[in-house]
Amino acid sequence: MRTSHESLHDFVREAMCRAGARPEDADQVARVLVAADLNGVDSHGVARLRRYVEGIRKGTIAADATPTVVSDFPAGAVVDAGNGLGQPAMLHALDLAVRKAQDTAIAMVTVRRSNHFGIAGHYAAQGARQGMLTIVTTNASPQVAPTHGAEPMFGTNPLAFALPTHPSRPYLYDAATSAVPRGKLERLEREERPMLPGWAVDPQGRTETDIPSLVKGLKAREGYALLPLGGAGEDHGGHKGYGLGLLADLLCGPLAGASWGRHVYGPDGAGLGHMVICARVGAFVDLDSFRAETAAMFDELRNAKKAEGQDRIFIPGEKEYERADERRAHGIPLRPPVVADLGDIAGSLGMPPLESIGGLK
Amino acid sequence: MRTSHESLHDFVREAMCRAGARPEDADQVARVLVAADLNGVDSHGVARLRRYVEGIRKGTIAADATPTVVSDFPAGAVVDAGNGLGQPAMLHALDLAVRKAQDTAIAMVTVRRSNHFGIAGHYAAQGARQGMLTIVTTNASPQVAPTHGAEPMFGTNPLAFALPTHPSRPYLYDAATSAVPRGKLERLEREERPMLPGWAVDPQGRTETDIPSLVKGLKAREGYALLPLGGAGEDHGGHKGYGLGLLADLLCGPLAGASWGRHVYGPDGAGLGHMVICARVGAFVDLDSFRAETAAMFDELRNAKKAEGQDRIFIPGEKEYERADERRAHGIPLRPPVVADLGDIAGSLGMPPLESIGGLK
Repeated sequence: MRTSHESLHDFVREAMCRAGARPEDADQVARVLVAADLNGVDSHGVARLRRYVEGIRKGTIAADATPTVVSDFPAGAVVDAGNGLGQPAMLHALDLAVRKAQDTAIAMVTVRRSNHFGIAGHYAAQGARQGMLTIVTTNASPQVAPTHGAEPMFGTNPLAFALPTHPSRPYLYDAATSAVPRGKLERLEREERPMLPGWAVDPQGRTETDIPSLVKGLKAREGYALLPLGGAGEDHGGHKGYGLGLLADLLCGPLAGASWGRHVYGPDGAGLGHMVICARVGAFVDLDSFRAETAAMFDELRNAKKAEGQDRIFIPGEKEYERADERRAHGIPLRPPVVADLGDIAGSLGMPPLESIGGLK
Repeated sequence: MRTSHESLHDFVREAMCRAGARPEDADQVARVLVAADLNGVDSHGVARLRRYVEGIRKGTIAADATPTVVSDFPAGAVVDAGNGLGQPAMLHALDLAVRKAQDTAIAMVTVRRSNHFGIAGHYAAQGARQGMLTIVTTNASPQVAPTHGAEPMFGTNPLAFALPTHPSRPYLYDAATSAVPRGKLERLEREERPMLPGWAVDPQGRTETDIPSLVKGLKAREGYALLPLGGAGEDHGGHKGYGLGLLADLLCGPLAGASWGRHVYGPDGAGLGHMVICARVGAFVDLDSFRAETAAMFDELRNAKKAEGQDRIFIPGEKEYERADERRAHGIPLRPPVVADLGDIAGSLGMPPLESIGGLK
């Protein structure tokens, strides 16, 4: 089943409003979730809506919270999200960072007491479209083992970087610091494809390749853990992925004044932290020259000799832009359980289902 | 053979002075090279001295260049290294970034027209010792293939991050964005240990595991290439390592106004670029609380359940600090070819050999 991205946006917006979010916040949540579905990051799209609606219902997300600046410097600020939705808090932080960096060249804003904010790349790209090198990270629920460890001690903590190499389609890197994110495992399971050794470990720290045991073990916090980018041990650089994941946790936890490690998503709520750095590229180099240079760079990369059996070298972001083009034109595919879930949410909120506002084909 | 770090420092300083560097610049070069040897990154220590001395002799390094600020903002600056030594240029940039960030909370400085600066982590740690989250990167000679590619298109471009988790021993991440750096291959070859599949490719893009062919092919630019962190293809996240390596090249090349990709170390010299970001942790959170939180975080990590056969989980930087302690106490081991090379350099500069200024045991 496919749905137009506009209908999906309207549906999410309406659901969030009915759940108790302010209209402008609901709109922001809808934009970020639908962006994930457009880019093909289905695990971070509308499949997450239930958790937001339930978080508000249960009181772990304060739908009426207003992000407030608790500390302010010429090129830095700290935002307290007041335990509200992650999207408005992060967009507030991004806006602040962009405005400050216009004057100072670079700015950094941290966010504390926040919730899930969707895909980090959405914010990074939005900063880049305003001429900024933008770095965004967040911490997340503990699922990853440190190198030589056998239990989850921190999240898949994504790092996103975007650069204004193009006015609307910036260089966009957005990736979990684990070898694979959990969403990929769930997709492989649905597609009945195997996972590979080196992605995750069982409670004894031995490589785990049975997806159902792993996903169940991760959800139940039974000691199963994903491995950092680079895999087990240090032979293939697992200590590097570990160092990057821990870096994100340091920035978004202790540095942002938020929860960290195993304490994220504790009994008092998520307590997530985020961080954004924006640097105005035009302060360091002429933006047009920068774009001309990077276009030449990307052309050289695309034209580089290919490995056997490969016919294309991608620039980070390209795959996502192409997938979004396809989905904007032909609709976003939704799996039956997601459609059923959205129907359920609509029912519980007393609103018309996605089908009735058009789009589902 | 072992040498005291003080003697090694004096030797490098003297050699650089005689080669034409100003005494203060020679001192900085000595400090950074010896720091690499202390930390165990032998490939970036005094083994590099010959290239510096020869670069000055051949005119590809301008020993008398003075780094100049060509663009200045409250929280940003651009430094032109004037094709001089990388160490004084980078230290100038770091100082600027630290001073600006004291006032503004964060600052970013780029460096263009520079040369090899040693280990990125040295600068990151130095920033962290001044209370700063410090990010340092540089580009480097082309040795790494992009994902799905079969020829070297950019360098092993390191990313270094340090955080003032401790007054003198900060959290320190400093790693090539390739699966392994070339220095590791050379070490394995000396130790007659094998390299692993997934680290590098031959000119057809097939996995290469013969170290002599690879090292020779890399040096001769014959199409052999190292692979990004995460290895070949996308199964283990090779596209992530590729995206990070390319990010470093974007920051240090087009953004810094320096050379990039295959054009680094061209006929006109290195043309390297560097970048440093410093953010004052005390602007975002109380520094003492930050240290208390991160100490608790690191303790939890150290005490996490270990994988089978493992008895210790490291915090990034710990291994290097412990190795430096050992080498400070017992001397830095130098391999016979390095000792011979240093003897040669001393002879060509008409200065006493390392042996005669004490230290070699």
